[in-house]
Amino acid sequence: MTFTPDQLEQFNGNLLYATVGIRIEKAGDGKAEALLSPPARVCWPFPGQPHGGVLFTIMDTTMAWAIQSVLAKGLSCTTIDLAIQYLAPAREGPFICRAETTHQTGRLAFVRADILDAQERPVASGQGTFRIIKMDFLPNS
Amino acid sequence: MTFTPDQLEQFNGNLLYATVGIRIEKAGDGKAEALLSPPARVCWPFPGQPHGGVLFTIMDTTMAWAIQSVLAKGLSCTTIDLAIQYLAPAREGPFICRAETTHQTGRLAFVRADILDAQERPVASGQGTFRIIKMDFLPNS
Amino acid sequence: MTFTPDQLEQFNGNLLYATVGIRIEKAGDGKAEALLSPPARVCWPFPGQPHGGVLFTIMDTTMAWAIQSVLAKGLSCTTIDLAIQYLAPAREGPFICRAETTHQTGRLAFVRADILDAQERPVASGQGTFRIIKMDFLPNS
Amino acid sequence: MTFTPDQLEQFNGNLLYATVGIRIEKAGDGKAEALLSPPARVCWPFPGQPHGGVLFTIMDTTMAWAIQSVLAKGLSCTTIDLAIQYLAPAREGPFICRAETTHQTGRLAFVRADILDAQERPVASGQGTFRIIKMDFLPNS
Repeated sequence: MTFTPDQLEQFNGNLLYATVGIRIEKAGDGKAEALLSPPARVCWPFPGQPHGGVLFTIMDTTMAWAIQSVLAKGLSCTTIDLAIQYLAPAREGPFICRAETTHQTGRLAFVRADILDAQERPVASGQGTFRIIKMDFLPNS
Repeated sequence: MTFTPDQLEQFNGNLLYATVGIRIEKAGDGKAEALLSPPARVCWPFPGQPHGGVLFTIMDTTMAWAIQSVLAKGLSCTTIDLAIQYLAPAREGPFICRAETTHQTGRLAFVRADILDAQERPVASGQGTFRIIKMDFLPNS
Repeated sequence: MTFTPDQLEQFNGNLLYATVGIRIEKAGDGKAEALLSPPARVCWPFPGQPHGGVLFTIMDTTMAWAIQSVLAKGLSCTTIDLAIQYLAPAREGPFICRAETTHQTGRLAFVRADILDAQERPVASGQGTFRIIKMDFLPNS
Repeated sequence: MTFTPDQLEQFNGNLLYATVGIRIEKAGDGKAEALLSPPARVCWPFPGQPHGGVLFTIMDTTMAWAIQSVLAKGLSCTTIDLAIQYLAPAREGPFICRAETTHQTGRLAFVRADILDAQERPVASGQGTFRIIKMDFLPNS
């Protein structure tokens, strides 16, 4: 399913996203897009630059939304593993993360994602493997 | 160098660690150990369970400390890439992360880490590759 | 540099490629493409299906060519780490591997690759991190 | 089950292992050990040094044996993904690979492995995620 702006809005209010500065923008057809506007509390050790763990968090999250967007009702997903590469310092936000499902079987989904800075320069890349589980939709990330 | 409790204390006060609930316990001889006591704001979507990105954040952080503990003055490190596996739900904290440098060359360091729950059951495992850079010590995580 | 068919031909004659069934088809502009026609000796345990290590070998190789295609004379590259995902059984060859450099700094190059079967169905995906070294061109793979 | 030398011997005769130079030495209790004596045909571009894909092949193989050693009859495993780090040039063989299962659920197994050279110096490290499948034992690697 393609999520409507209203549906996304519900999730965008959660405490984790608020803490880290994540906002899901789109999710549909196995793809998703999210925006990271990191507050000072997650920019350490370099002021203004989100910690690598924060970049990972939005990547994992956006991947989960990309998968969720093609799952049937009653199914959700959870990360098995994720490999992230840090290409360049994340200096100029807001950052955008785009994720895309590359393959899906009955129980597994494979995803790729990129994070770009405000100038569309690549900041991080990653690939993740997720398990598809029976659970009413509650994105795992 | 093996960091003294006082030196660790200085870093443990930073805003990111406070936000996420990280506390570095030990760092010396290429190894480090950190404790994760995640506040509610980073436990989503499951109450009481830190988000996968939070587990990643402490893993990346602990790895960086393990490397830093054997670097000469004037050198620091920064993550090139990190692959994390989620072995089991992170239900019962506080969680402990232990990292160990597996190999180091002039410019690169390779590290492994495990996260265990309060019962010492494995929750996540990972391996990271870090770049060694000229920079006065400011742990990148 | 974009390699000419004659230049590629020289390398395609090497013993490893012959053993595994690899043939580099194109390399230029940070991209490369290679063909895998695996002989029976590397198809185990399933007859006709190349072992996962063989898929990895062509992926690593194609990535190295993608990077090499944009390096100056006197430089070469060597794999630091590579994460591969197996999406589906590799049943119907020949297989094609396409690699693309996603980012390059003075000393590091980041690459992605996909392997498809004869019907262009995805079989494997991967991302690699390479070190750029001073060495006359001898592709490391 | 712990495999007996006779059982291992049956598998050690397969064509892939012979091509690449792999010999499984031990497999039991979630651990396995294999020896790599690479013939010239897989040592390229550096004479005497096995290609990175060959190191990967023995790692994937040894991991699969580690898992297989604790599976019930009628079950086998297949690689979902594997991340390998190359720590140092693989100059002096034979090489030994040791793998160990770090966690196992009903459907997934997580493994780590190291490859050492003849002086027990680390050459490569890795972590893999495997799917457990219903299939009479035919190690996937």
